[in-house]
Amino acid sequence: MQRTTIARLPDAAVGWTLPRMEITTLGECRFSSPEKHFVSDNLRVPAVIRQSPEAPPDPSALAFELAGRREKLFFDPKTTRAGIVTCGGLCPGLNNVIRSAYLELTFGYGVKEVLGFRDGYRGLDPQRGLEPLVLTRELVDDIHKEGGTMLGTSRGPVDTGLAVDNLIRRGVNLLLCVGGDGTQRGAHELYVEASKRGHPLAVAGVPKTIDNDVQYVSRTFGYLTALEESRWVIDAAHTEAHSVENGISLVKLMGRHAGFIAAGATVASQDVNFCLIPEVPFQLEGPKGFLAALKTRVVQRRHAVIVVAEGAGQDLIPAGSGQRDASGNVKPQEIGGFLREQIEAHFKAEGVPMVFRYFDPSYQIRSRPANCGDAILCDQFARHAVHAAMAGKTGLVIGLLHDQFIHVPTALLAKGGKRVSPTDLLWQAVLASTGQPAVFG
Amino acid sequence: MQRTTIARLPDAAVGWTLPRMEITTLGECRFSSPEKHFVSDNLRVPAVIRQSPEAPPDPSALAFELAGRREKLFFDPKTTRAGIVTCGGLCPGLNNVIRSAYLELTFGYGVKEVLGFRDGYRGLDPQRGLEPLVLTRELVDDIHKEGGTMLGTSRGPVDTGLAVDNLIRRGVNLLLCVGGDGTQRGAHELYVEASKRGHPLAVAGVPKTIDNDVQYVSRTFGYLTALEESRWVIDAAHTEAHSVENGISLVKLMGRHAGFIAAGATVASQDVNFCLIPEVPFQLEGPKGFLAALKTRVVQRRHAVIVVAEGAGQDLIPAGSGQRDASGNVKPQEIGGFLREQIEAHFKAEGVPMVFRYFDPSYQIRSRPANCGDAILCDQFARHAVHAAMAGKTGLVIGLLHDQFIHVPTALLAKGGKRVSPTDLLWQAVLASTGQPAVFG
Amino acid sequence: MQRTTIARLPDAAVGWTLPRMEITTLGECRFSSPEKHFVSDNLRVPAVIRQSPEAPPDPSALAFELAGRREKLFFDPKTTRAGIVTCGGLCPGLNNVIRSAYLELTFGYGVKEVLGFRDGYRGLDPQRGLEPLVLTRELVDDIHKEGGTMLGTSRGPVDTGLAVDNLIRRGVNLLLCVGGDGTQRGAHELYVEASKRGHPLAVAGVPKTIDNDVQYVSRTFGYLTALEESRWVIDAAHTEAHSVENGISLVKLMGRHAGFIAAGATVASQDVNFCLIPEVPFQLEGPKGFLAALKTRVVQRRHAVIVVAEGAGQDLIPAGSGQRDASGNVKPQEIGGFLREQIEAHFKAEGVPMVFRYFDPSYQIRSRPANCGDAILCDQFARHAVHAAMAGKTGLVIGLLHDQFIHVPTALLAKGGKRVSPTDLLWQAVLASTGQPAVFG
Amino acid sequence: MQRTTIARLPDAAVGWTLPRMEITTLGECRFSSPEKHFVSDNLRVPAVIRQSPEAPPDPSALAFELAGRREKLFFDPKTTRAGIVTCGGLCPGLNNVIRSAYLELTFGYGVKEVLGFRDGYRGLDPQRGLEPLVLTRELVDDIHKEGGTMLGTSRGPVDTGLAVDNLIRRGVNLLLCVGGDGTQRGAHELYVEASKRGHPLAVAGVPKTIDNDVQYVSRTFGYLTALEESRWVIDAAHTEAHSVENGISLVKLMGRHAGFIAAGATVASQDVNFCLIPEVPFQLEGPKGFLAALKTRVVQRRHAVIVVAEGAGQDLIPAGSGQRDASGNVKPQEIGGFLREQIEAHFKAEGVPMVFRYFDPSYQIRSRPANCGDAILCDQFARHAVHAAMAGKTGLVIGLLHDQFIHVPTALLAKGGKRVSPTDLLWQAVLASTGQPAVFG
Repeated sequence: MQRTTIARLPDAAVGWTLPRMEITTLGECRFSSPEKHFVSDNLRVPAVIRQSPEAPPDPSALAFELAGRREKLFFDPKTTRAGIVTCGGLCPGLNNVIRSAYLELTFGYGVKEVLGFRDGYRGLDPQRGLEPLVLTRELVDDIHKEGGTMLGTSRGPVDTGLAVDNLIRRGVNLLLCVGGDGTQRGAHELYVEASKRGHPLAVAGVPKTIDNDVQYVSRTFGYLTALEESRWVIDAAHTEAHSVENGISLVKLMGRHAGFIAAGATVASQDVNFCLIPEVPFQLEGPKGFLAALKTRVVQRRHAVIVVAEGAGQDLIPAGSGQRDASGNVKPQEIGGFLREQIEAHFKAEGVPMVFRYFDPSYQIRSRPANCGDAILCDQFARHAVHAAMAGKTGLVIGLLHDQFIHVPTALLAKGGKRVSPTDLLWQAVLASTGQPAVFG
Repeated sequence: MQRTTIARLPDAAVGWTLPRMEITTLGECRFSSPEKHFVSDNLRVPAVIRQSPEAPPDPSALAFELAGRREKLFFDPKTTRAGIVTCGGLCPGLNNVIRSAYLELTFGYGVKEVLGFRDGYRGLDPQRGLEPLVLTRELVDDIHKEGGTMLGTSRGPVDTGLAVDNLIRRGVNLLLCVGGDGTQRGAHELYVEASKRGHPLAVAGVPKTIDNDVQYVSRTFGYLTALEESRWVIDAAHTEAHSVENGISLVKLMGRHAGFIAAGATVASQDVNFCLIPEVPFQLEGPKGFLAALKTRVVQRRHAVIVVAEGAGQDLIPAGSGQRDASGNVKPQEIGGFLREQIEAHFKAEGVPMVFRYFDPSYQIRSRPANCGDAILCDQFARHAVHAAMAGKTGLVIGLLHDQFIHVPTALLAKGGKRVSPTDLLWQAVLASTGQPAVFG
Repeated sequence: MQRTTIARLPDAAVGWTLPRMEITTLGECRFSSPEKHFVSDNLRVPAVIRQSPEAPPDPSALAFELAGRREKLFFDPKTTRAGIVTCGGLCPGLNNVIRSAYLELTFGYGVKEVLGFRDGYRGLDPQRGLEPLVLTRELVDDIHKEGGTMLGTSRGPVDTGLAVDNLIRRGVNLLLCVGGDGTQRGAHELYVEASKRGHPLAVAGVPKTIDNDVQYVSRTFGYLTALEESRWVIDAAHTEAHSVENGISLVKLMGRHAGFIAAGATVASQDVNFCLIPEVPFQLEGPKGFLAALKTRVVQRRHAVIVVAEGAGQDLIPAGSGQRDASGNVKPQEIGGFLREQIEAHFKAEGVPMVFRYFDPSYQIRSRPANCGDAILCDQFARHAVHAAMAGKTGLVIGLLHDQFIHVPTALLAKGGKRVSPTDLLWQAVLASTGQPAVFG
Repeated sequence: MQRTTIARLPDAAVGWTLPRMEITTLGECRFSSPEKHFVSDNLRVPAVIRQSPEAPPDPSALAFELAGRREKLFFDPKTTRAGIVTCGGLCPGLNNVIRSAYLELTFGYGVKEVLGFRDGYRGLDPQRGLEPLVLTRELVDDIHKEGGTMLGTSRGPVDTGLAVDNLIRRGVNLLLCVGGDGTQRGAHELYVEASKRGHPLAVAGVPKTIDNDVQYVSRTFGYLTALEESRWVIDAAHTEAHSVENGISLVKLMGRHAGFIAAGATVASQDVNFCLIPEVPFQLEGPKGFLAALKTRVVQRRHAVIVVAEGAGQDLIPAGSGQRDASGNVKPQEIGGFLREQIEAHFKAEGVPMVFRYFDPSYQIRSRPANCGDAILCDQFARHAVHAAMAGKTGLVIGLLHDQFIHVPTALLAKGGKRVSPTDLLWQAVLASTGQPAVFG
């Protein structure tokens, strides 16, 4: 088994002749693709594309393999059995990914069988007794019209040894994992364990996070649908606030570490007056604090709409619980309830009557079917994951950088997420549409 | 001023020659309608229309004046100034009512001016300093495409004396009040006070409650839109519950005293497994209680969707707070949080793991623009209220019985609300679509 | 077999003791309903409910049996096989009717088997070789979330003899027919033929017409959904017209004989300037004709939106083709194209440049899933049809009058349709919202 | 006035030291931006970013200026008057562009006045007498919630001399043109003419085409919204075809030269069986032609959904009309009607009965409000156009390449459009989801 780990890449000061950010492959590819159009294994997409006289193109800079169908396959489709598993919280488009992966595996490559493991990683654990579904055209035919995942999902890891036993026993050589950071780390361990045992297992990931905070993925699937639903709720929040004297509506949206949904929905709606995200700290108190700005707005304009990402202002909440969800992620503290208390206390102290409405629509947002922008994205993520795995590539997720689908080593993915930058377009557009100051406090 | 109060009607054992359920009028109508088609003042709609050999038609039974444009008007349009006010919580269609009332007053009758009083009854209080809007075609042109009320709203009463002072000073002879029970009682007092002072003031109400629980109104405006939004949330709840092992979604919908929204959304959705409403008491504990039935369902089918009206199960919640909202209505206790605790405790005690999701979308539902069914209804309620008031009728709300718009004396309205009957079509359809037992416990 | 045909009713001058508008029943009912709540066979709903001193209640006037579950059934559920068939053009809610009928038959009554005949009446013809579907809970589970009909549909009759052979051979005793006039006439013939052969066949119809023009049915299913979709198209038409100088948008909507969709969508939208329906003839030419009014509007306001029902203005189109569709209904002439030519010629002759846009969305409207208002209606129509047929009633369709579901003899239904009355609420609201004159010409 | 035309660039074999694809600027920038975050004038985005050992990065390859706020402005905001004009057919998002441009000009830069020229280029012609709107916060407040353009639009050019007279007389120094190729060419001429007269006029374009076929713009605004509406129509088409025996639905979508909407909607929907676009020629006749494939599908599967871009198959239509629209673009022949005839004739000749439905929803699609993905894109296009113009850059449109907003010289834009490549992701996904052969014939 041939490996080109990425471990030594960061410190390798090498020229173009030695390609950068290589992907691990299971070995030499011996089978021919049944289709005609291919992407060469040699094509790279640089991580940084902006150029300046001061920083001319650097051939040794970080660059990624371009994703796509390869001419030579590692697996013989006729004897290959594939598996799909969806993990973690719901996100619009999960069923689209399942459907397109099934179609590409079956009609694009002609693999023998596609198994749908149920209830996330639990379905890999043979002790759970969750027999996987054998996917068929009929089973997947209309699933993309519904939200959720037809395979079921769950949080939390699986015993790697037991899972690999299961995959070997079922003859699965190709595993597509749709999930977040934790899922992809677990997927990587499955491949490592399988390779220890000499079982060729290509593990390809499709990054899933409604928060849109994956490094090297300019847009994760589900994000545009989440904006649509969020805007719909903001619209209600605006109507509520606008229809009474001194109406204040607070909408809590998803975003534990990154405010993409809050910021994107704010720009799309243009009805938001204050947008608070994890990347931009803010003060509540003081003459330039958030509460004073809110009061000024309400007194002047009789209403205000606030959007807050769930991970915003964590430093302001006194008693850090440090609770973790079943996936092991630290749960954000309840900023919504905290803000509500602070606002109500402040207006009471200031003697300004107001009518407060709280909106917490996360479960309504993440369970929707994918809109068109996301549906197309899911289709492409799924097919690229299949292409990579059929070529024997493993330990990777499909990325999307500069409008190009790429192969991202899972290990690299784990190093840190994408964030809203206060100097970037999106946040500048938030400031422009809300009219809020760049800094509270 | 000629009066025919309804006070003596219930005990009047009289024949047809003495019309039933008369409406108070301000006096003799002297002006001609500018339009051609009229409804006679003599037409009646009986409250009960089902007949049987055992109960032949009773000419002396309760019957209502048919609403509609009258040939003779009490007010001279050229010198009449009208006012509109919207009170209480939001409801889809408020702007449609305002718009159609304005159009009918202005283009249908040619009244001199239409004032929009702001922020509910507060706008009638001159001490608040809320100058009413002088409505124009441009102001109302697109308001029906948005939810909420362009006039603003509030809860709570107004000092009747001050309000009538204000109306007299502004020369308002015709006041349309859009609101619930409390609003209509307040409207009645305005008319009584004005008549004491000799100021001819026709007060006509459009009943507003998203709960659809007004007696003599078979469907209140906003109800169908509320169902649409509720179904959309139930759809998300179903997806969430369905995508995990033992997923339970609980959706709390509006309905303090009546379960029309919960029941209607359940039948429209067909994805609900348990529907709980105020009219049908239920037990939590015991082998035939709700919790046992829920557990059986979850164990057998791996998921469940529960819809609960906010006023359901009030007897089950220990510490009755008896809190009232600003309109003086007793606030229901938080059945959602209570049920959640009970369910979580029960499943823990039974050793059945489950994933719980709570949905509380009321503010998202009531703030939507009216759908077509409601838009047409609003148009007709508004125009009929204008017709009644222009003919000098007062102390009434527009009702809708057996597909006929009618005049309902406000005093009669106050006597009790409409309820879901467990023997009626709607609840039978709920039982059939959920498969839940007729009784829990 | 006991019959009470309706043939002699119109001339029967009888008192209340002889119930009016009786429904044919197959014979004495011997089995008990498995449920608890019933409707007595003696209850009647009068066709006319408005009363006046000049026209006191007439006990001998036209009245209908109230629909609903009966205590005694004619068929033994354990041995009864039911069939469902959907015929004619698509209409939102067909799948809801199929689903609720299946659920009521199976879970409400416990019938042995429910067959879904495919492709309309073609599926009854054994020579077509279309084996009916044996309906199951799984098959119908999600069908109400999609438009169209899962059974398929077609236009045109079936050979009555062959169809009855087929029903007898398959042991079908209860047939639910969902369709328009022609379908219900055909359904009646099936019952007549079956009774000639001594085969007890209860045929109950659910009236289906998106045009909402069925006598004794105040609202047909699909109508409210059609309004929603129509308003969405009118919104586009308004935007197109409004965004250019002298923009004219013409929207053709369904309505061969009745303008309910055109009128309802006009009132719901409030963006329409001219509404043309079959019931209100109009002149094109002359100083008070439609074309002159259109020109005046366009010159003054720079844009106009016209809604025309497909059956409007048939007298204006020169060469009557008299074409019929496969169901034998005379097809309306293409008023859309004709109006377009007339408008373009008129504006050219008058030297007024304009931009014309034509919208013909019928197939997009009728193929949608039912909205909530229609979903609930479908559920109730379906269950009432099942109740009637299980009680051995036949030759009827379910009607809806004064908010009451009733039994309407099919023969009565055939006598003429419901129409928009120019003096009624709906048309008055059209005139008020468009501002168009009551008469063109 | 300093110019760096692009004319000599294609043949310039130059190194990085001489920046590529320079943008014309009106002269030296003397004023400071009121904001803090800037983009350097030196940053470039290369047109080609994929790298391979065979094609290492070429510092002299085509590269574009990165768009964004500049530190130094050419115009003094306090004395600058800006104009906005929208031209050509409707497209979702026009009002968003107007609104965001107004907000950026007014609140981001503090310009003196923003004029909205009405009805496209007609509004620049003083002889038309269309006084421009002076935009205000109130005027633009809710426009983004509606489709169309609040300024109005038209097709066709304006007399350049008259228009520049008008702009000079009104003191307009900055003109934002939202429109397609023709509009941008016209915009370029305005700048050329103004510079001849010594009037500093910065003309910045926002490329507008719902067809998404602009070179150097990876996604034009309105495209995602168009997909959403198109999918909604395809859904109806699928229901119609699926509900009858041998149902064939043909949906004609926008796309004169490029099939992005047809292809994108096909992938998003997954219900399409045949997708025909201008870039992929096809044969109708012959054993491998489209008609034979359609017949095979219909016979096997009983229904088929076809999506055709309006510019597809132009070579197949006999009598080329060569008609042009008011903008001078050659109008595509009516492929929809032509295909319909061919299909009907073929099935008749083959003796296969079928039911045909035709859908032509273009005006319904392009008149919608922008969805969230498009709303955010519009905001960014608009703000970047303002940034460029305030820095004195002219003769450019804002492009979007590799997720970066760039400055594209208008002259370059005119050289040819973007096309769907049959070897690219989108078309491969179409083939995979439809199952249609890569070639017909």
